[in-house]
Amino acid sequence: MAKGSDSKGKTLAAAATLFRQQGYHGSALHDVLAASGSPRGSLYFHFPAGKEQIGAAALALSAEAVREGIAQAAEASENAEIFLVRIVRAMAADLERSGFKEGCPIATTALETSAQSEALGTAARNAFQKWELEIKRGLFRFGLSAGDADIVATMALSQIEGALLLARTHRSLTPIHRAEQALKCLLRALHDKH
Amino acid sequence: MAKGSDSKGKTLAAAATLFRQQGYHGSALHDVLAASGSPRGSLYFHFPAGKEQIGAAALALSAEAVREGIAQAAEASENAEIFLVRIVRAMAADLERSGFKEGCPIATTALETSAQSEALGTAARNAFQKWELEIKRGLFRFGLSAGDADIVATMALSQIEGALLLARTHRSLTPIHRAEQALKCLLRALHDKH
Repeated sequence: MAKGSDSKGKTLAAAATLFRQQGYHGSALHDVLAASGSPRGSLYFHFPAGKEQIGAAALALSAEAVREGIAQAAEASENAEIFLVRIVRAMAADLERSGFKEGCPIATTALETSAQSEALGTAARNAFQKWELEIKRGLFRFGLSAGDADIVATMALSQIEGALLLARTHRSLTPIHRAEQALKCLLRALHDKH
Repeated sequence: MAKGSDSKGKTLAAAATLFRQQGYHGSALHDVLAASGSPRGSLYFHFPAGKEQIGAAALALSAEAVREGIAQAAEASENAEIFLVRIVRAMAADLERSGFKEGCPIATTALETSAQSEALGTAARNAFQKWELEIKRGLFRFGLSAGDADIVATMALSQIEGALLLARTHRSLTPIHRAEQALKCLLRALHDKH
């Protein structure tokens, strides 16, 4: 029975990908096991509370990867507009690379379970909160007031999440390109306001 | 065995509500039967191809109800801003009334199944296309050019879908209020452009 952290990591990575592609309820534990190549015993060893525990940990793993991406996008950008466009493009790149199978790693499970499971609802809330905070931090760094940065972070995340949903469903990048335009438009309107 | 259209309608209404609240894979056929109060035989009579057929028909039913709401919002509004805000508020009212259980009736099933099921993917695509077209029609009626109306319809639907996702997950109307602000901002920026 493999009890190493490698087996735990493989299980979580496999679960995160499956939940992202086909949702939480559509992915059975035996699918996670098959995709991870880990023995059944290791799954029960690392996640004694079962699927819900794996789900919450997989959401946390995915959330942290996206948060890091947002922080890196801020580092690599010269202004707020480039920063937001970079975030959109990074998420769209995942979608395109996967043949429109991998959109937001949190949204599907959040919608399926937030009214049912306290553990999964909390994990999804934490994920979106982390991202909003990281976007807010970036916008503040590029000169927006704390108040504006807070509001624009929510608007931007909504725009990106909605565009990922439409792009995935339509199998088209048009909603992504229009989201970029919308975000530029929002920032310019804010700039003109002052 | 009840074979009347009433039994078919009850089954579809129950399925639409369940898929909206907990997703497609999280709702078993026996949940749909129990919620509809229809006999098992009527389900097989009306939907011989099974759950996927019920799913596609339930998405079409929900899609048409929202499309009608958008058309009515256009009728009741004086300008593009009031029109878009009315759409947001109608969807937010459903969410609030249901204790944050009922967001977009299409999004959850679309994310779960669009990469797996041709029938469900097509039904979800049709739903979003219908809504975008109805929003575009309203915007055109309120004076936007056909080109602008097309682009703004996609931006608006993305903003609304993303805000519904965040509002549902956070159990808070803040993302909805910020979506309203974002949509007003987009329309004003477009207005100032001309």
